Amino acid sequence: MKTVSVERLRSICSRVFAACGAAAGEVEILTDELIESSLLGIDTHGVVLLSQYVYEVLDRTIRPGAPFTILRETPSTAVVDCGFDFGLVSARRIADLVIRKAGSAHIACVVSQRTHHVSRLGSHVQKLADSGFIGLGYVAASTQYGHRPIVAPWGGREGRFSTNPLAYAVPTRDLPIVFDMSTAMTSQGRVRAAIRRSETLPEGYIQDGEGRPTTDPNDLYGSPPGSILPFGFALGHKGYGLALLTEIMAGTLAGRAVDPEDLQDHYSNQLCLIAMDPESFCGREEFYDLAAELSVYLSATPPAPGFEEVVLPGTLERRTRARRLVEGIPIDEEGWNNMKKAASRVGIDIEA
Amino acid sequence: MKTVSVERLRSICSRVFAACGAAAGEVEILTDELIESSLLGIDTHGVVLLSQYVYEVLDRTIRPGAPFTILRETPSTAVVDCGFDFGLVSARRIADLVIRKAGSAHIACVVSQRTHHVSRLGSHVQKLADSGFIGLGYVAASTQYGHRPIVAPWGGREGRFSTNPLAYAVPTRDLPIVFDMSTAMTSQGRVRAAIRRSETLPEGYIQDGEGRPTTDPNDLYGSPPGSILPFGFALGHKGYGLALLTEIMAGTLAGRAVDPEDLQDHYSNQLCLIAMDPESFCGREEFYDLAAELSVYLSATPPAPGFEEVVLPGTLERRTRARRLVEGIPIDEEGWNNMKKAASRVGIDIEA
Repeated sequence: MKTVSVERLRSICSRVFAACGAAAGEVEILTDELIESSLLGIDTHGVVLLSQYVYEVLDRTIRPGAPFTILRETPSTAVVDCGFDFGLVSARRIADLVIRKAGSAHIACVVSQRTHHVSRLGSHVQKLADSGFIGLGYVAASTQYGHRPIVAPWGGREGRFSTNPLAYAVPTRDLPIVFDMSTAMTSQGRVRAAIRRSETLPEGYIQDGEGRPTTDPNDLYGSPPGSILPFGFALGHKGYGLALLTEIMAGTLAGRAVDPEDLQDHYSNQLCLIAMDPESFCGREEFYDLAAELSVYLSATPPAPGFEEVVLPGTLERRTRARRLVEGIPIDEEGWNNMKKAASRVGIDIEA
Repeated sequence: MKTVSVERLRSICSRVFAACGAAAGEVEILTDELIESSLLGIDTHGVVLLSQYVYEVLDRTIRPGAPFTILRETPSTAVVDCGFDFGLVSARRIADLVIRKAGSAHIACVVSQRTHHVSRLGSHVQKLADSGFIGLGYVAASTQYGHRPIVAPWGGREGRFSTNPLAYAVPTRDLPIVFDMSTAMTSQGRVRAAIRRSETLPEGYIQDGEGRPTTDPNDLYGSPPGSILPFGFALGHKGYGLALLTEIMAGTLAGRAVDPEDLQDHYSNQLCLIAMDPESFCGREEFYDLAAELSVYLSATPPAPGFEEVVLPGTLERRTRARRLVEGIPIDEEGWNNMKKAASRVGIDIEA
């Protein structure tokens, strides 16, 4: 495990994304987003993604600078085509658009097509909260088009969904409340990590290809392949219902891809963002007063045994952030080597 | 257990609610809503509520015919004051208002104050789907005002929330998809039923007043009182995050009550409904095509052992409905006697 300073990682990301052909503004978005996720301790969505993105630029899965096109629009809604630009860049454009719309329409919703990996959904809803709006977000990864669906519906023994996250962010006078959850029991990343470390998974996370519960992570990649269960353990029908909500909000509402041929075997995220202006409801100041009261009310709950405190969503990540800003960001050997190798493909030596 | 025909229950509800002073249109809404929940097999939200509502009318907790007032409004949003009319009547007015707004604004949201028990949230989002909109819904019951909060935040040992349900409904060419979940592990109704039957609860549902896991339902009413855990078992932080979303969407966004004194010890629901027009996104016909494809895609999933099929949310309730339409609605002795006693208080003999 190395620990790398934020400054150094910022320089690495900037040079690599510029070498990938991203424009200056896009380089900044990509760098900020990956570093922010690493700072918050959400390492799967942090700087280690750099290597993945480099290869996807090289094979044209990601198309830097692709036009951001509004396909259909009303004052409060839009369907956009992101042309497979970097998903993080597309997500920023989508957030900007829904913020602009909600600013005059009070509530607005934007959905997207041909969007590449948008990474951490919490970051995108937080953009809405940073502008004073309540943000709701949903991401459905393409399932029918080449990306193997890995999450089973409740009662099924084959995957039908991606991990279909949903998220929200709430503006306050202080820092926003940010909540981001997968509607599945776990992620492929976690299952693969268990395989690498020869560990078993907790009960209730996955099932094998026959739909039998298993704790062996290898069963996910057996023949027939297993699947991740919907969130909720014995009450997984609730997680299934939430996964379906995400599928409909982010996938179905955005419509079929404009060019199905282009999407064949093309990994795609669909991002749906809703922004709501508290000023148009109880009023901004009242909303902030009440949100502050609610935060205190919750934080003051006496803790249960085994817990030190009750926290608002996003609090623990922010503490990690404060620490990592000072101490630097830990990156494991494998992740660092992957970054190094990928960067060299676009002529950058990250150890220089 | 009695089985009572829908026709007879319809007559009972109509006579009782009319005797409570509900206007003709309100009687019809109340009767339809209670019978529909009973037909769907959601008996806790069905005709047995009649007795509760009668007593609440008699003690003026419910105020039949109270004006429905728009406190604040834009073309796409509203905050309404329901004046503690029957919650089911208020919910219908709220649904009608958000449908009207979404019809011209493409997406709309209405939140409410001083709303009495709205009962089954799924019914209200379904109204939006019946009108061709995607419906999202949230209900926060008053917590600060007299109604003991029963659901703990993650890591806490005191209740802070109600069961804070969330729901959605999706229009299709056929019947809508309707999903309605509590963000808590269980309901007080279920805990009380376990006490009556001297049963234990499954593990992970509640904790005692010291925050220790327990399966003894009596611990919920111990000294200090216990609490229901947020949905999710070992991953209950997710249920906590969803409970907080509901609290913010339905409670905070609606603002503090206009008249805090009036709300002192006054049970209150806050209902938030969002309606979205698929026509303004991918287009209605395309949306229906894709929703149909998605339904088939999910329903065709081979079942896991112990399951006969994969169903869309709302399917099982609809099968119960078809059966009960023919066979009648089962009501236990206690529920029937409660109805009989309550009805007699407004001069109606339900056995006549």
